[in-house]
Amino acid sequence: MKPIKVGLLGLGTVGTGVVRIIEGHQQDLVSQTGAEIEIAKVLVQDKSKARNIALTAQKLTDSPEDVISNPDIDIVVEVMGGVEPAKQYILEALDRGKHVVTANKDLMALHGREILSRAAEKGCDVFYEASVAGGIPIIRTLVEGFSSDRITKIMGIINGTTNYILSKMSQEGAAYADVLKEAQQLGYAESDPTSDVEGFDAARKMTILGTLGFHANVALSDVKVRGISQVSKADIAYGKQLGYEVKLLGIAERNDEAISISVQPTMVKKSHPLASVNGVYNAVYVYGEAVGETMFYGPGAGEMPTATSIVADLVAVVRNLTLGINGQRGIAPYREKKLKTDDQIRAKHFILLHVQDKAGVLAQITQVFAEHEVSLESLLQHPNDANPSAEIIIITHDANQASMNKVLQQFEAMDVVQAIKSVYRVEV
Amino acid sequence: MKPIKVGLLGLGTVGTGVVRIIEGHQQDLVSQTGAEIEIAKVLVQDKSKARNIALTAQKLTDSPEDVISNPDIDIVVEVMGGVEPAKQYILEALDRGKHVVTANKDLMALHGREILSRAAEKGCDVFYEASVAGGIPIIRTLVEGFSSDRITKIMGIINGTTNYILSKMSQEGAAYADVLKEAQQLGYAESDPTSDVEGFDAARKMTILGTLGFHANVALSDVKVRGISQVSKADIAYGKQLGYEVKLLGIAERNDEAISISVQPTMVKKSHPLASVNGVYNAVYVYGEAVGETMFYGPGAGEMPTATSIVADLVAVVRNLTLGINGQRGIAPYREKKLKTDDQIRAKHFILLHVQDKAGVLAQITQVFAEHEVSLESLLQHPNDANPSAEIIIITHDANQASMNKVLQQFEAMDVVQAIKSVYRVEV
Repeated sequence: MKPIKVGLLGLGTVGTGVVRIIEGHQQDLVSQTGAEIEIAKVLVQDKSKARNIALTAQKLTDSPEDVISNPDIDIVVEVMGGVEPAKQYILEALDRGKHVVTANKDLMALHGREILSRAAEKGCDVFYEASVAGGIPIIRTLVEGFSSDRITKIMGIINGTTNYILSKMSQEGAAYADVLKEAQQLGYAESDPTSDVEGFDAARKMTILGTLGFHANVALSDVKVRGISQVSKADIAYGKQLGYEVKLLGIAERNDEAISISVQPTMVKKSHPLASVNGVYNAVYVYGEAVGETMFYGPGAGEMPTATSIVADLVAVVRNLTLGINGQRGIAPYREKKLKTDDQIRAKHFILLHVQDKAGVLAQITQVFAEHEVSLESLLQHPNDANPSAEIIIITHDANQASMNKVLQQFEAMDVVQAIKSVYRVEV
Repeated sequence: MKPIKVGLLGLGTVGTGVVRIIEGHQQDLVSQTGAEIEIAKVLVQDKSKARNIALTAQKLTDSPEDVISNPDIDIVVEVMGGVEPAKQYILEALDRGKHVVTANKDLMALHGREILSRAAEKGCDVFYEASVAGGIPIIRTLVEGFSSDRITKIMGIINGTTNYILSKMSQEGAAYADVLKEAQQLGYAESDPTSDVEGFDAARKMTILGTLGFHANVALSDVKVRGISQVSKADIAYGKQLGYEVKLLGIAERNDEAISISVQPTMVKKSHPLASVNGVYNAVYVYGEAVGETMFYGPGAGEMPTATSIVADLVAVVRNLTLGINGQRGIAPYREKKLKTDDQIRAKHFILLHVQDKAGVLAQITQVFAEHEVSLESLLQHPNDANPSAEIIIITHDANQASMNKVLQQFEAMDVVQAIKSVYRVEV
């Protein structure tokens, strides 16, 4: 078979990893696919920049057309990131009959449907394993490994920055701001960390996982998002005391009627497999009606892990080329989604209150829960330093979100409640 | 598309699960494959046996020919287990152009190459995801998810019975014999538990994982096997004290020259992701040169998890039927294996010795390690109840197996060494 020619859009960290794997594993790749994979052209911003990589100067270009309109190129690998101009380049490449491999979560979360439709129309493959959870082949697992099952819950630690920060806060009892600063110095967090710490990055990935896991047309705007910037040392300490770790989880759930998707800091019981996923590692927990509990763990980012997923996608495209079946696999029909309302979302909750330290307060608090039919699993009362005030930590049984909201509203209006310090979803 | 007709060989636990999933998820399966999947015929031992399952009497047969020679049947699912007559039935089905899905680890470990060659010859698919680690799609992960990477290490907790026993021993400080008895009463262990507790079941699964992970012609006889029947309460207690859990691991390693595969009880550092896999759960840890550390966790056995993998394979066969590409995917060329010699296998070791409690003994012991260039990471000495004797616990740095063997031989010959109580490989 003649060599398969690949064009790269971008040569940052991940692009460099792709070049390294293709060069380093050439013999294995040939034995797997029957074809040589050759990097023919690479779009870069600055051709003259010194690079520690085996690419001759004439393979570099600063003109996108040299990749996307190049008749020699069979497959375009997009590793530039961001929505534009990546989207335009990919659509143009598809229009010219080129297959596409991308690591672009923003693009797939916002415009995945449009891109996949265009690909189907043109008989082209679009694969995007690297867009979620770096080196973990979670997209293949959902689409192929669990093709027989009805997945009802997906929970993911899919943002390494926030998991690093929360792990450090837990292990060292450190404050959020201090750990964030350290993470920025180590390069684990961006100088503007908003997208990571406020949960937006995770929300994009959950859009992709929800779409594939539930075969539904999930949109980014369907994901309720709350980040970790308000997680306090006290929350983590009380969580630990009760046997929980705080993790930023993407949570997608469905039953027969409807789905819900969110990203939120969550109290995860220590015995849960997600609780011991620490540092920059990612993990995706998948519950299927038939298979039950599973979890997939690995590096969520980084040059070589992300490149592993991209080149695995390249191998899949090349195998499809060999069989002449490109553009015919992997697009399951979408169901129209229906989102759960607040009274359909059920979960346990952790609540930390500051209340006046006087007789009858506890009775008033528990009465509010009773009124809204929220039953309690445990309740702890501590004296607080700031007298006359007490801290109350409550863990509820499963309760619907609508009732929980009413409980919290009522607390807001009560004089004896000085502050609702924190509220977390709980997963056991 | 016309309905795809499936014949089942066997209707035990797993076969029943397959029927339940196909019945229960029919609509999802149609939407994924474009075809209805129909169970046309099921081979059973006793047609008259009462079954709590939606199959009409005329679908049951006690004649294998009704399945394997039935011209209506497209795909044969083999869930009878054991080598014969399963092997004969599968080869006959392939000869008649039927695709095969099997959960049979014994068969694939011993005769996988013959069966896959026959399938390739006849243009048929043979898929066997369910043969290793039940509901975890580890075969797909190795073959497709990591197709781009060079896998250098696979470590698996792939036998639920032994993991249940070791977890209980660790959690309750119980003795092996007592926990085994309890496991037998609960149905987690067979009345003859040899195949599980002596590691033979795990060895078959490692043969399959080693073959796929390393693209090498691994044979069952290449796997060095040691079971858990000699694991003592003391071993587990000392392990815990030093921060380790004892797990029965399948370990496959390779470097550029050679491979080694074993099944053995192993001291696993508590921070390792495999250390917290408890009870009947399975997990497979995969290290790839590019991707780094990954782990895949889930139920390793049971009716529905195993059936999930089987029906996912059925979906893959049906998708291939739709595309007309059966028999053309998934068989990577085999490399000729070369097995590592003892001086090429390197690992840390845990050693528990009983020695005479007198001056100079420690010097003699450490001198033996020094002679064979085995360096020590830690050494603990305890007084022992049986005076005048002392217990010494040693953890070595990485040392090659040949040197370790010489050290142990020399201990055997020394008067001051009363007993080599235990030796474990250590994984951190």
